[in-house]
Amino acid sequence: MSVRVGILGATGAVGQRFIQLLDDHPTFELAALTASEDSAGDPYREAAKWRVDSPIPVDVAEMTVRRTEPDAVPDDVDLLFSSLPSSVAVDVEEDFARAGYVISSNSSNDRLAEDVPLTIPEINPDHIDLIEVQRDERGWDGALVKNPNCSTITMIPPLAALDGFGLERVNVSTLQAVSGAGYSGVTSMEIIDNALPHIGGEEDKMETESRKLLGEFDGAEVSWHDMEVAASCNRIPTLDGHLENAFVDLADDPDPSEIEDAMREFPGVDLPSAPNQLIHVFDDPERPQPRMDRMRGGGMQICVGGVQETPQGVKFNCLAHNTVRGAAGASLLNGELLHENGYL
Amino acid sequence: MSVRVGILGATGAVGQRFIQLLDDHPTFELAALTASEDSAGDPYREAAKWRVDSPIPVDVAEMTVRRTEPDAVPDDVDLLFSSLPSSVAVDVEEDFARAGYVISSNSSNDRLAEDVPLTIPEINPDHIDLIEVQRDERGWDGALVKNPNCSTITMIPPLAALDGFGLERVNVSTLQAVSGAGYSGVTSMEIIDNALPHIGGEEDKMETESRKLLGEFDGAEVSWHDMEVAASCNRIPTLDGHLENAFVDLADDPDPSEIEDAMREFPGVDLPSAPNQLIHVFDDPERPQPRMDRMRGGGMQICVGGVQETPQGVKFNCLAHNTVRGAAGASLLNGELLHENGYL
Amino acid sequence: MSVRVGILGATGAVGQRFIQLLDDHPTFELAALTASEDSAGDPYREAAKWRVDSPIPVDVAEMTVRRTEPDAVPDDVDLLFSSLPSSVAVDVEEDFARAGYVISSNSSNDRLAEDVPLTIPEINPDHIDLIEVQRDERGWDGALVKNPNCSTITMIPPLAALDGFGLERVNVSTLQAVSGAGYSGVTSMEIIDNALPHIGGEEDKMETESRKLLGEFDGAEVSWHDMEVAASCNRIPTLDGHLENAFVDLADDPDPSEIEDAMREFPGVDLPSAPNQLIHVFDDPERPQPRMDRMRGGGMQICVGGVQETPQGVKFNCLAHNTVRGAAGASLLNGELLHENGYL
Amino acid sequence: MSVRVGILGATGAVGQRFIQLLDDHPTFELAALTASEDSAGDPYREAAKWRVDSPIPVDVAEMTVRRTEPDAVPDDVDLLFSSLPSSVAVDVEEDFARAGYVISSNSSNDRLAEDVPLTIPEINPDHIDLIEVQRDERGWDGALVKNPNCSTITMIPPLAALDGFGLERVNVSTLQAVSGAGYSGVTSMEIIDNALPHIGGEEDKMETESRKLLGEFDGAEVSWHDMEVAASCNRIPTLDGHLENAFVDLADDPDPSEIEDAMREFPGVDLPSAPNQLIHVFDDPERPQPRMDRMRGGGMQICVGGVQETPQGVKFNCLAHNTVRGAAGASLLNGELLHENGYL
Repeated sequence: MSVRVGILGATGAVGQRFIQLLDDHPTFELAALTASEDSAGDPYREAAKWRVDSPIPVDVAEMTVRRTEPDAVPDDVDLLFSSLPSSVAVDVEEDFARAGYVISSNSSNDRLAEDVPLTIPEINPDHIDLIEVQRDERGWDGALVKNPNCSTITMIPPLAALDGFGLERVNVSTLQAVSGAGYSGVTSMEIIDNALPHIGGEEDKMETESRKLLGEFDGAEVSWHDMEVAASCNRIPTLDGHLENAFVDLADDPDPSEIEDAMREFPGVDLPSAPNQLIHVFDDPERPQPRMDRMRGGGMQICVGGVQETPQGVKFNCLAHNTVRGAAGASLLNGELLHENGYL
Repeated sequence: MSVRVGILGATGAVGQRFIQLLDDHPTFELAALTASEDSAGDPYREAAKWRVDSPIPVDVAEMTVRRTEPDAVPDDVDLLFSSLPSSVAVDVEEDFARAGYVISSNSSNDRLAEDVPLTIPEINPDHIDLIEVQRDERGWDGALVKNPNCSTITMIPPLAALDGFGLERVNVSTLQAVSGAGYSGVTSMEIIDNALPHIGGEEDKMETESRKLLGEFDGAEVSWHDMEVAASCNRIPTLDGHLENAFVDLADDPDPSEIEDAMREFPGVDLPSAPNQLIHVFDDPERPQPRMDRMRGGGMQICVGGVQETPQGVKFNCLAHNTVRGAAGASLLNGELLHENGYL
Repeated sequence: MSVRVGILGATGAVGQRFIQLLDDHPTFELAALTASEDSAGDPYREAAKWRVDSPIPVDVAEMTVRRTEPDAVPDDVDLLFSSLPSSVAVDVEEDFARAGYVISSNSSNDRLAEDVPLTIPEINPDHIDLIEVQRDERGWDGALVKNPNCSTITMIPPLAALDGFGLERVNVSTLQAVSGAGYSGVTSMEIIDNALPHIGGEEDKMETESRKLLGEFDGAEVSWHDMEVAASCNRIPTLDGHLENAFVDLADDPDPSEIEDAMREFPGVDLPSAPNQLIHVFDDPERPQPRMDRMRGGGMQICVGGVQETPQGVKFNCLAHNTVRGAAGASLLNGELLHENGYL
Repeated sequence: MSVRVGILGATGAVGQRFIQLLDDHPTFELAALTASEDSAGDPYREAAKWRVDSPIPVDVAEMTVRRTEPDAVPDDVDLLFSSLPSSVAVDVEEDFARAGYVISSNSSNDRLAEDVPLTIPEINPDHIDLIEVQRDERGWDGALVKNPNCSTITMIPPLAALDGFGLERVNVSTLQAVSGAGYSGVTSMEIIDNALPHIGGEEDKMETESRKLLGEFDGAEVSWHDMEVAASCNRIPTLDGHLENAFVDLADDPDPSEIEDAMREFPGVDLPSAPNQLIHVFDDPERPQPRMDRMRGGGMQICVGGVQETPQGVKFNCLAHNTVRGAAGASLLNGELLHENGYL
């Protein structure tokens, strides 16, 4: 039996990815699209400048866009995916949760709030039960669940696979694609024959979200992981796919083959949008590369390569598709986890 | 009074930069150009496919290209700049040194040899006297001096400025321009909408050359610096200018403003091609950027930005023009140092 | 019943596309791969540096690469696709045809030879019977059939659709992707932040092949179309997909809507790899765009937009995927036509 | 004796080019900068996000930005350069002209107005006297002069050189750089690995402005040239420099060498910012290329290559720097012409 879902902020870049990923979904049926006041009342094909590389699903094209308010969304919609700008989301998502909707949100607000689950289903599915605490404290019928930032999610699976060896500290440098800034976020004059060594707020997200994600949830609160993280974030002239170089200090001294095994064998989850294998490890040090590897596992797999010992531990490169695994796909997977765990 | 100089391997990308930088040089007069057997005897304008963005100097265009052998170069040439492929340079440079020529070489061979000076004039000018050891051991009248790799040279000045705070370890990640691989080194199919997480041999160069450069020379040998260095090297779709993210552990605990002051005040040298100020530090965290900043100081200045504390020390971004400060300009500056110190 | 096919020159960029397109083909079964002497004897996965964005089909990965000689290919292979360099193809293709093989070739040699069919199945399928003339004259059991150059094939369907209005002359300017030059044909230093106004031999191919393709075949020879064609060919920093601006003089004076109708209604063919509709016409003048539209119809559809009257006739823009519809897919479709017409 | 000049709309991309080009100008002294209401009162270094690749001139950095109104500009300023958005310029430029200022404008409004000179000093300097008609009709003390669009100006010099052979018609296709759309005009998501076949209004500008520029001025009005022009305009992933392919029908039948001679010998003008030679013709068909050739003659020279006969006349490629010769440099040169002709 299908679950009726909606998208808050359906016309933007991540909103379009949600629509693409929900097309032919085995469980979720798209039933509502919201956008800003200007677009409300228009058919979706007019409201959105469609830029994804597959055509708009025919029935979605004709759906009428609604206002982004609880009153405007039908009551039989059980789950809302949110890709609202965080400045808007910070109020609106709470309104929807209060009105009884369950929201799986990609927006950056509230990710670090103590009673908001920040989850990746393969990494910390148990954190989802923080919803109970949230409902107690806030008196909501609905719920608000977050996925991490695209740059964070790329490195977390390989770090989680190393946690058994005693994760102590991480220095990470990113080479991020322009789509991470939204369709108009990076101008061509800024980035052609260039690179940008700063992405506002991004380093902080990687340094904090990673510690919450790998923290322990005891049923009442999440104790953050005590590893130390320092990140440097860069934008490069690539369309999709974030590549990252991680330098990791470990308490133990595993050799590279043990590390690669731990990554390859890291368990996945049995959810419709999850890849069969969470982490693909390349032997070839020239991989992963953004254009060649971002679509592995339908854009949901994490790729790792170049695993090598360093004087202080280990270094490796990792890659994920930033608007699939790093945004719309992450929220979708959380939605599937919510369904699996009976929260819908 | 001018010094007559030559270029070994004058037709390649770095060879062309040598010609550009030697045009109107106050001390050096270009008197000989060599290339491979096929081009010997041709006028330079025919032998080289000129790709630098300023026109070939008129007199250079008509110079006849010579074979790359000591017999083919006039005796009154005192200094040779070398941008030969290292597989060729490994034998040929020794032939020239044995025949009495002083060579300032950008080729990667022999950089770590115990009796070969690896120098940056602003950093370790005293290492140049390793020539005395070299001449003793090898019985040469000439000499062979090296500059480091383009990715190494970019980070060394800021690291040297931090050495007073107790340099302990460095994790560094690079975003390197395609020109670093030579004119045909990276195909467009490889790099458009992509990034390459591996550059053969590059990480090793950064990890070893940096320790020799910052080592102590006691008149007999160089004791390498004992800092630990781990590097991850990436190629991105940028023409010129290597951007690097460094994470540094220090014994002391300076605050960012002390660090920036140490960088800004790091002394330069009084040589014709040296920039007035060695390190330019930006307050704006969005800088340095390759296209905007690579030509500062005629391409010879090192740019730094984003200096910030980390849990373990400090992080910063640095940038240099890889074919000027990182290649031809580096050899040229070493040539000026050799002249200043009376080795010509 | 399946037809056994082989690929001559299977390791190159177009060879890899053949393998991708033949995977799961309803009629053709891949049975032989050839390459240069060096690779013969190796499994395909070692012989080829695989760069297509879908993985190598498992069974193809283990196939042993053969020498490119008739003796090395099994007799029960009925059809060979050729993507050999034309300098090699000029001799080898004749050897194979003489030995009884039917070759559908993408190589540029012999396209204008009087007894060699140059065909696009939707445009001039009747020209395929030039094989009878070819066999008579050359005494071959096999046959050699060609498809046009990638830049030619992009504009021919819309021009064919206009032929009913009296095609008189064509000025055409191309914006061609780098993949058209092969994997290493265009270096990144040449094309980033640049465009190249010259592609050797390309303009001549467009000016001649187009007239043969639209010519009349009377059973004995092809009379070239008498339209006048002038082409200017440019390379731009785009990976795949050739965009072209055509200016066409017509004897009649149709209005743009009649022209668009003629294009939309231009008939396709019923072959496995043919698109349902040959020409897709956009109303939106901002389309077609290479990255957005090159994969329409599995990369086999021709896209047209910007149809407008000019003082002298009409102008329009057209686009096709240069390594699918413009190379491997073109040969494959000709192979399907050969099968349909009983030549295998 | 110097002339005091101002810039209307000084903070934008073209405004910044004006400042760069006016630095050290032999005749013009920069005395006033205007921008929108928000920036008025701020020092220029704060009002503008400086993105030109040379530093802001020190004295300009500290100049106070004024409102864009006649009252806000000192009376002793004689000449104003305008790079206002055309929607703003359409009213404001007239206000300034009425108040007695002479304006050399790059904005697209009013270029085709019957009493507004549209001039390129080397092409139609006599049209400048249309100012007399303008003053008569409008009762202005000041004057308004325009330069053509960047895509038009690129092709006009070579076309003017061909006019002696009987210019009859032109088909032209453009490959335009992203800077032509302003700093934020083209997003990176739109253009990386792509090309855009449509630039709003651009084709119309090329088709009309070219005929006015090459028209005859009889002292009272300009009779447009009767050549027929059809243009197709494309945006490509290049930063600066518009490359164009022109196909030209001529009444006469000159051979390519006569055509090249006519271009090379086309006379320049003796104004400070004019290049020594207006048109540079390459023998090498691979030139001109945007990145290699856009800065010839300080960005003010027109480059031509690939001159070849066609069945109908001649084809050639041409290139100019779109924000120097095609925008700020064009207005500056018109300003120099106004000064030379005593209009200031």
